[in-house]
Amino acid sequence: MLRCASMELVVTDLAASRAFYVDLLGLIVTEEDENAIYLRTMEEFIHHNLVLRQGPVAAVAAFSYRVRTPEDVDRAEAWYAELGCRTERRKDGFVRGVGDSVRVEDPLGFPYEFFFEVEHVERLAWRYDLYGPGALVRLDHFNQVTPDVPRACRYLEDLGFRITEDISDSDGVEYAAWMRRKPTVHDTAMTGGNGPRMHHIAFATHEKHNIISICDTMGALRMSDRIERGPGRHGVSNAFYLYILDPDGHRVEIYTQDYYTGDPDNPVVRWDVHDNQRRDWWGNPVVPSWYTEASLVLDLDGNPKPVVDREEPSEMAVTIGADGFSWTRADDAGGARRGEAPQGFKLGNQL
Amino acid sequence: MLRCASMELVVTDLAASRAFYVDLLGLIVTEEDENAIYLRTMEEFIHHNLVLRQGPVAAVAAFSYRVRTPEDVDRAEAWYAELGCRTERRKDGFVRGVGDSVRVEDPLGFPYEFFFEVEHVERLAWRYDLYGPGALVRLDHFNQVTPDVPRACRYLEDLGFRITEDISDSDGVEYAAWMRRKPTVHDTAMTGGNGPRMHHIAFATHEKHNIISICDTMGALRMSDRIERGPGRHGVSNAFYLYILDPDGHRVEIYTQDYYTGDPDNPVVRWDVHDNQRRDWWGNPVVPSWYTEASLVLDLDGNPKPVVDREEPSEMAVTIGADGFSWTRADDAGGARRGEAPQGFKLGNQL
Amino acid sequence: MLRCASMELVVTDLAASRAFYVDLLGLIVTEEDENAIYLRTMEEFIHHNLVLRQGPVAAVAAFSYRVRTPEDVDRAEAWYAELGCRTERRKDGFVRGVGDSVRVEDPLGFPYEFFFEVEHVERLAWRYDLYGPGALVRLDHFNQVTPDVPRACRYLEDLGFRITEDISDSDGVEYAAWMRRKPTVHDTAMTGGNGPRMHHIAFATHEKHNIISICDTMGALRMSDRIERGPGRHGVSNAFYLYILDPDGHRVEIYTQDYYTGDPDNPVVRWDVHDNQRRDWWGNPVVPSWYTEASLVLDLDGNPKPVVDREEPSEMAVTIGADGFSWTRADDAGGARRGEAPQGFKLGNQL
Amino acid sequence: MLRCASMELVVTDLAASRAFYVDLLGLIVTEEDENAIYLRTMEEFIHHNLVLRQGPVAAVAAFSYRVRTPEDVDRAEAWYAELGCRTERRKDGFVRGVGDSVRVEDPLGFPYEFFFEVEHVERLAWRYDLYGPGALVRLDHFNQVTPDVPRACRYLEDLGFRITEDISDSDGVEYAAWMRRKPTVHDTAMTGGNGPRMHHIAFATHEKHNIISICDTMGALRMSDRIERGPGRHGVSNAFYLYILDPDGHRVEIYTQDYYTGDPDNPVVRWDVHDNQRRDWWGNPVVPSWYTEASLVLDLDGNPKPVVDREEPSEMAVTIGADGFSWTRADDAGGARRGEAPQGFKLGNQL
Repeated sequence: MLRCASMELVVTDLAASRAFYVDLLGLIVTEEDENAIYLRTMEEFIHHNLVLRQGPVAAVAAFSYRVRTPEDVDRAEAWYAELGCRTERRKDGFVRGVGDSVRVEDPLGFPYEFFFEVEHVERLAWRYDLYGPGALVRLDHFNQVTPDVPRACRYLEDLGFRITEDISDSDGVEYAAWMRRKPTVHDTAMTGGNGPRMHHIAFATHEKHNIISICDTMGALRMSDRIERGPGRHGVSNAFYLYILDPDGHRVEIYTQDYYTGDPDNPVVRWDVHDNQRRDWWGNPVVPSWYTEASLVLDLDGNPKPVVDREEPSEMAVTIGADGFSWTRADDAGGARRGEAPQGFKLGNQL
Repeated sequence: MLRCASMELVVTDLAASRAFYVDLLGLIVTEEDENAIYLRTMEEFIHHNLVLRQGPVAAVAAFSYRVRTPEDVDRAEAWYAELGCRTERRKDGFVRGVGDSVRVEDPLGFPYEFFFEVEHVERLAWRYDLYGPGALVRLDHFNQVTPDVPRACRYLEDLGFRITEDISDSDGVEYAAWMRRKPTVHDTAMTGGNGPRMHHIAFATHEKHNIISICDTMGALRMSDRIERGPGRHGVSNAFYLYILDPDGHRVEIYTQDYYTGDPDNPVVRWDVHDNQRRDWWGNPVVPSWYTEASLVLDLDGNPKPVVDREEPSEMAVTIGADGFSWTRADDAGGARRGEAPQGFKLGNQL
Repeated sequence: MLRCASMELVVTDLAASRAFYVDLLGLIVTEEDENAIYLRTMEEFIHHNLVLRQGPVAAVAAFSYRVRTPEDVDRAEAWYAELGCRTERRKDGFVRGVGDSVRVEDPLGFPYEFFFEVEHVERLAWRYDLYGPGALVRLDHFNQVTPDVPRACRYLEDLGFRITEDISDSDGVEYAAWMRRKPTVHDTAMTGGNGPRMHHIAFATHEKHNIISICDTMGALRMSDRIERGPGRHGVSNAFYLYILDPDGHRVEIYTQDYYTGDPDNPVVRWDVHDNQRRDWWGNPVVPSWYTEASLVLDLDGNPKPVVDREEPSEMAVTIGADGFSWTRADDAGGARRGEAPQGFKLGNQL
Repeated sequence: MLRCASMELVVTDLAASRAFYVDLLGLIVTEEDENAIYLRTMEEFIHHNLVLRQGPVAAVAAFSYRVRTPEDVDRAEAWYAELGCRTERRKDGFVRGVGDSVRVEDPLGFPYEFFFEVEHVERLAWRYDLYGPGALVRLDHFNQVTPDVPRACRYLEDLGFRITEDISDSDGVEYAAWMRRKPTVHDTAMTGGNGPRMHHIAFATHEKHNIISICDTMGALRMSDRIERGPGRHGVSNAFYLYILDPDGHRVEIYTQDYYTGDPDNPVVRWDVHDNQRRDWWGNPVVPSWYTEASLVLDLDGNPKPVVDREEPSEMAVTIGADGFSWTRADDAGGARRGEAPQGFKLGNQL
């Protein structure tokens, strides 16, 4: 498998979504009709990185990965069939621009797609006349919510992914893991929570100021209430980030400048869940909605998958509020755990 | 009067303050001894923009302005004497590098200083070998907390300042005003609250990434709990900002890219206190400490001035919490005022 | 006088010029008709910073300055009349949006204009939805070519300008001087050469990447042959710069990040004409066209002023070519002057 | 093979080279002794990306690639042996920090090295307290000069490289080709010229301003004559670039923001040698030294390899000077080829 390549997103108001993804974010329309819009980033040469499809319920219809050869589609189909997963193969593809593909309901309940055949379109990397100040240049990754993170990791490792970073605690609870095919920090991340749900889709910009300009523009358009979190610097991934919400509440991350992970012995970075810099290197609090809200995903019939609750502790509960704690400096952690006044803990942003 | 030029800051641990202002922020040491450190920015040609002086109580000893001529020091002395303010004139200055100066206890209780004579030092603007990634290039402004903003504005307007922006409400309550001599948004701002206290001192960088690098470095040094607010885009001033806290809790703003205000008919920008983008254009919440905490100021004997409570409504109370409200879009304000669910209001960052 | 405020530029193909200034550079159209376009920058609140007027000969019709009071227009008129200059007063202004104004043919042959009355328009500083990646936020300065730089400086000093930097040699020849009203490095510069001619008009961006994006876009539009010089870092002014050419060959500088100069004792920076970093801090060569080409200026009847040759040495001749020399390190200058192989001299960019 | 990983560079004055690579460029010293310095970039986790070794003749001792498994070292040794190349295997490595390695004199005469075993060191990506304003975050690529580009491409394709971009002409002459293992535009490039020689080694920064800060610092240190070319935007690769020269004249590129190339059908971008934007998207001229100068390479005994002249046309000759031509717009090329005045050709930067 090469890389995360595209997401098919069901939206309830296609015109409103077009305003968000095309007018505000500047994604390029490869083609569109009354039911769907096919969008790509500035440096992409395949037909699309995002399909917006009008539908009754906001949800994700497919997390789509590109494989290395046509035969890898056969292999994917066989592999999932052997796992007992429902699969559907379409020689002409499920969406425009993409040929022979297989979609599966994966062991975690997510609709995954694999394809090789795809229509090439102009790579607009040199078309600076088309760049806006916040130009999105690549699809970077997906992020999925699932109750059992270790199980999700085993499954994706079997599929060929490698873990690059994770968040856990001293009791061995896994809260989230980042997994890659292409040599960046991730093609997808597994976030512990009630699922299967889609946490976000992330696009990359070239520089940090591009992300800031998106914030500035959303302010100018009086859409600041759709800025959910950030901008900030991640601890995990070391990238600069922003989370915004589309008209249906689908979360979009804008992301830049993580690091190369392509060596087989690439060091895994493990973060303590109580480290207050793990999700924001500057210690800014994570808003609760970021932990609790996510998008439904569809089965192969187009029906929303039921959401199963996470049984293990939630990252939000163990890090903020009455029963949680976070530390800025590891030395301070002991006192905090004993219920003493936390040292160097940054109090939240709100009464 | 030309501009805000320097602040004398009393700190309780000179070595800790040196680590903050010199090692972390990269201010240039013009000279220092065991009791005081004289610091300047990269583009400054006068002796210093900040004096750190060891003392028993963290406080501000002087807000110092440069005047246009030697005679203006006489005029300032006479003007304040006529107002009935205590003044003190020192031909050899109160601090190293500065000559003939007058200090006053101004009508609001702040220790203001005026000087013209000053030692010239090398303007390091071209010394890129000395720039760090977060280089501070200019002192930009002060910010003062005072109970009665309209009174403060009248006084500073008499002194020759002009208002560039303010925050008020439909009942005519003034919450804050920005006032300038040099043609930027301000040399000082008057923030309504219990005072006299010093809210912050602000230094300018060239670009936004310089500010981000300061955050990143504070994360690397596990000082993220000293990042109080930001980075973000101000509504007022349109500048990109960050607030951090020095070892004594003195607040420092890092600031870049406001606009030219030098024309006499420069339009005053008036913000509604309920506009949720006034203090952060992206709608990110203002932390309570930013509203409530500030530094003491000293009288001419070096004793802290008593703090007088503000009698008018507080900006924090009217904008957040049970009795306050904020709107993202002006059209949404009506419902919010009637206690209906606010439209487009961004919920705070914390449970 | 407050500041350089606007230029009236005669262009020979208004549609082509509109494509350059509006479509490429993103200046905002305040109003336009078939003969003229009124343009402003993002942070401007007066009617325009640039007037493009269709005409038979590409030239500058006015260098326009804003004064502090209505009475200053009277003073300017009287001052120039006393100098024996031709003046023309129009109570309703020479261009739209501007009221009572005086235009003069100044002692150097340039058409200068002074006005106070002006229509206010929306300051678009917060309208990030209108910003392109190379947004021009302010008019920064003019640059004029005149044969006798010392004479030009005396005249402008009498008018109230101050010198901030200059280029000269050890024989006392003045090659160029930078002069300011507002507290930046300049409102105009006097460049020694055949004149009166207009060397360039300069607009400011917020950051360096904005300037780079203009280059990138000109490459994408296959207009790279209209990039004349740069981008680079100036020695003089310490600003980051780019010179591009409009369809008539009028030179436009894009400029960012010079320094505050508002103190009366602001140190004058004097550059040796042989210092190879004076015009480009990185030592990149100045193209000959930059020295030789400039725009005609018009008299008050709209006729081009005759161009008078400079009699003193030309900066180009003394710095490059067989008879000139430049040094990178001052210590190397001696050998170079004696005709020895220059030490640390950067050879030009071309065979 | 994974990626270009390190270069061993022989320098004639180790202290001078240390000042350049450590003090100026900020590379991190992993270890050093009196004969050698081992340096790495901020995001690297293997022992080094550059070895500086004191020696009598400035040259390259090894272009070192990391392979995916220990067995790949065996395979590389066998593959080159079968080609008839001299090989040398050292189980303990040729340099510190690296284990079992093979060095070869490859068919083009270059000293190539392959290794898997390597000492892990701290990845300093999060250590922003150690970042300078021009921090180098990754080794990006090598660039080699060889007479016969098509032959070089066949060899590297056999070794597993893929071509991403090239420069050729309508007669089928190949002037240069870019070849990758990791999914960036290149791990090495083959530049047509007298060889075998090393054209440059390239390090990546996060953003463009980091590169500009290196220029600014070199100006401040009066080293501007060691800035050979740029900064600029490449046509080929679309990256932002700068070329500087170390004390021995070894050329170093600073590079940022090319694009993802990891798909097997990644479109190859082919540039016409006469396209004046191919090497600088802004049309700025390439200095002759950039075409003609390069570093010697050593054989496995440490002796410089003889340099063989290129027989095919040189890119410099066909693009500039009396017999060459370049065009800005393809439509203009015809006239230029017929010897007519070129349309849209940007004249060089120097008399």
